Amino acid sequence: MKDMTEVTPVYLDNNATTRVWPEVVEAMLPYFSEQFGNASSIHAFGAEVGGALRQARRSLQELIGAEFDHEIIFTSGGTESNNTAIRSALQVQPGRNEVITSAVEHPAILSLVDWLEKHEDVVVHRIGVDKLGRLDIDAYREKLSDKTAVVSFMWANNETGTIFPVDGLAELAHQHGALFHCDAVQAVGKVPIDVKSTDIDMMSMSSHKLHGPKGLGALYLKKGTRFRPLQRGGHQERGRRGGTENAPAIVGLGKAAEMARASMAEDIKRMTALRDKLETGLVASVGHCFVTGDPLDRLPNTSTIAFEYIEGEAILLKLNQAGIAASSGSACTSGSLEPSHVLRAMDIPFTAAHGAIRFSLSRETTEEEIDRVLAVVPEIIAGLRVMSPFWSADGASPENFDPAYA
Amino acid sequence: MKDMTEVTPVYLDNNATTRVWPEVVEAMLPYFSEQFGNASSIHAFGAEVGGALRQARRSLQELIGAEFDHEIIFTSGGTESNNTAIRSALQVQPGRNEVITSAVEHPAILSLVDWLEKHEDVVVHRIGVDKLGRLDIDAYREKLSDKTAVVSFMWANNETGTIFPVDGLAELAHQHGALFHCDAVQAVGKVPIDVKSTDIDMMSMSSHKLHGPKGLGALYLKKGTRFRPLQRGGHQERGRRGGTENAPAIVGLGKAAEMARASMAEDIKRMTALRDKLETGLVASVGHCFVTGDPLDRLPNTSTIAFEYIEGEAILLKLNQAGIAASSGSACTSGSLEPSHVLRAMDIPFTAAHGAIRFSLSRETTEEEIDRVLAVVPEIIAGLRVMSPFWSADGASPENFDPAYA
Repeated sequence: MKDMTEVTPVYLDNNATTRVWPEVVEAMLPYFSEQFGNASSIHAFGAEVGGALRQARRSLQELIGAEFDHEIIFTSGGTESNNTAIRSALQVQPGRNEVITSAVEHPAILSLVDWLEKHEDVVVHRIGVDKLGRLDIDAYREKLSDKTAVVSFMWANNETGTIFPVDGLAELAHQHGALFHCDAVQAVGKVPIDVKSTDIDMMSMSSHKLHGPKGLGALYLKKGTRFRPLQRGGHQERGRRGGTENAPAIVGLGKAAEMARASMAEDIKRMTALRDKLETGLVASVGHCFVTGDPLDRLPNTSTIAFEYIEGEAILLKLNQAGIAASSGSACTSGSLEPSHVLRAMDIPFTAAHGAIRFSLSRETTEEEIDRVLAVVPEIIAGLRVMSPFWSADGASPENFDPAYA
Repeated sequence: MKDMTEVTPVYLDNNATTRVWPEVVEAMLPYFSEQFGNASSIHAFGAEVGGALRQARRSLQELIGAEFDHEIIFTSGGTESNNTAIRSALQVQPGRNEVITSAVEHPAILSLVDWLEKHEDVVVHRIGVDKLGRLDIDAYREKLSDKTAVVSFMWANNETGTIFPVDGLAELAHQHGALFHCDAVQAVGKVPIDVKSTDIDMMSMSSHKLHGPKGLGALYLKKGTRFRPLQRGGHQERGRRGGTENAPAIVGLGKAAEMARASMAEDIKRMTALRDKLETGLVASVGHCFVTGDPLDRLPNTSTIAFEYIEGEAILLKLNQAGIAASSGSACTSGSLEPSHVLRAMDIPFTAAHGAIRFSLSRETTEEEIDRVLAVVPEIIAGLRVMSPFWSADGASPENFDPAYA
């Protein structure tokens, strides 16, 4: 890693993807070259694999508090789960053609509903949020009707970490006979979830956000929920998702789920303390910056800080040179130079949204790493501001801040 | 593996799935816990991964003779590639609503087109085959018209190994302005493919059929072919398939493709010789059995032998006890007790189709393993026939053969 040769890199981009735990890799390894049979085969090579898959399914079931293990459908990732859920909900309710979602969902939801709205005669309502990223519940109530096929709200926002009250939101959907889908990709493994005690009908998960392997996700489908597969083929996953089971990855996710569950209470405590230290320290030492999202209900690991009057990409490059990996907005949209749609929906001024940096911690993040960030960031920000034509010594020239890519 | 403790197991079910080569696992390993960044991220963790993905894409490009590396779209497997191709072809040609395919395709095609026919106003023509599994070209020509949106024929059959003349079939499709899709899941890595010299517009591939990891596939999409994604989300794969890139698996497939290409000529020679030895030996020693498929154009690794007057599941169980893994029909349909749809389409009598066993070799198969099979199969078959009420000493009571599950 070119810019990191001198120092041990600090990885604070865990909402983009996480390091696969060595224990998870170890659990996966036998299923590549030893017990590599097709789980659907009847010979011993296949049968052994079947047992491992059942165990992994149970581990994920326990992590999310599902009532039955067959409520878990393994998919190729959060994006497939989201696409499957929304399309299925529309197909099983031909009399309903409206989707309600929020303006701050992940692109895996937003680009799908944009498409459906444009090309497939679906009406989409995108509910706004306030300055803290909290959903406008009144606007949501207003849009609910007997035309609503599905409501899709995320459990926790990937950029700000803001947690939506999905339990209550799902209840409201059911009052109107609509299905409720939750994109819980950023929440599973980080905060306690007991899906059986909620009205959630479908819930999307992604393995690589909780130290499991990439290329695997899951869709929780509450027993009795009508369903149409996105991917048709063999009889795998009880006919709900064709394709040879990705046995090593499923076993890996099972192990990751088990580990997340075992240490969750402690992890939350430690990550929250480190995140708070990071935020308090930066706000105190940098100035003209603020923490985004709901201070009262946020993921323990996520901190997006908006640094005013400078551009996020420049901050990231400097951080990268200092051996610190963070991000601006979602990795899935990082090719674009638009400021984050999440921060725009929160009505955060351009002068600040452009300089927003997401630090996302993991269970592995150490206090030393946070101290490293606290030590280098103030200097980086100060250096960039000195070069910024929009920054003056007294620190305020918002009317002049007009980045080329805005 | 319970039944295999005494002897080293013989794995002859490589058309269901293959052992991941240790070199492939080794190539994958750094991308789980070291270079684990999200390839779409801009920091060094992500950038390093991007380079590895480019290399892997080129390796697969070279294996199939694609003109451009961006003609490869990574997916979660052959099933996703097939579903994506067929649905895309129908969507980009709203004036055409007919699909032509064969009666012997994989369930990933057949269950999809069954669904489209029943629920989405698509007309499906399933072209038959002769007793050797060869496509009825006249019937195909007859069904082609300016209503044909897409023709989908497999490169090689997963059960019999019969190879279709896809190049000529694609030319015919183009004469009618139809798109041509090829399910090449069983062919890629086993026989030479130079897709740029054909009229194939889309081609499906699966990593785990060529000693790469499960949970990964690819769709070849010829440059200029109109396309609609199945899975919408981030901008990955040039906006053609949303979802975080499965970096370790992609690197693994790249390595597997490289290895397949390097030894293909030699592998074909050796596998063909072993397969022929297996077939000649069994037909000579067992009696009342025959090799299915096209003797002149078949995969080098695939042999489905129909043993008359007994049931395949019983043979498989006995083989399993003897430490030999084979299969009856496709693993993807092995939950069902129906005889293979492929053999039925070939008009192979029930009395033989029920006793068909697929032996599928790999580059790793040894002569000793084939000798083991030759040593144990005759006794297994003889033993089952003695117990079979449909078998008489002179070896023919077809009129009485009526398995309970037929």
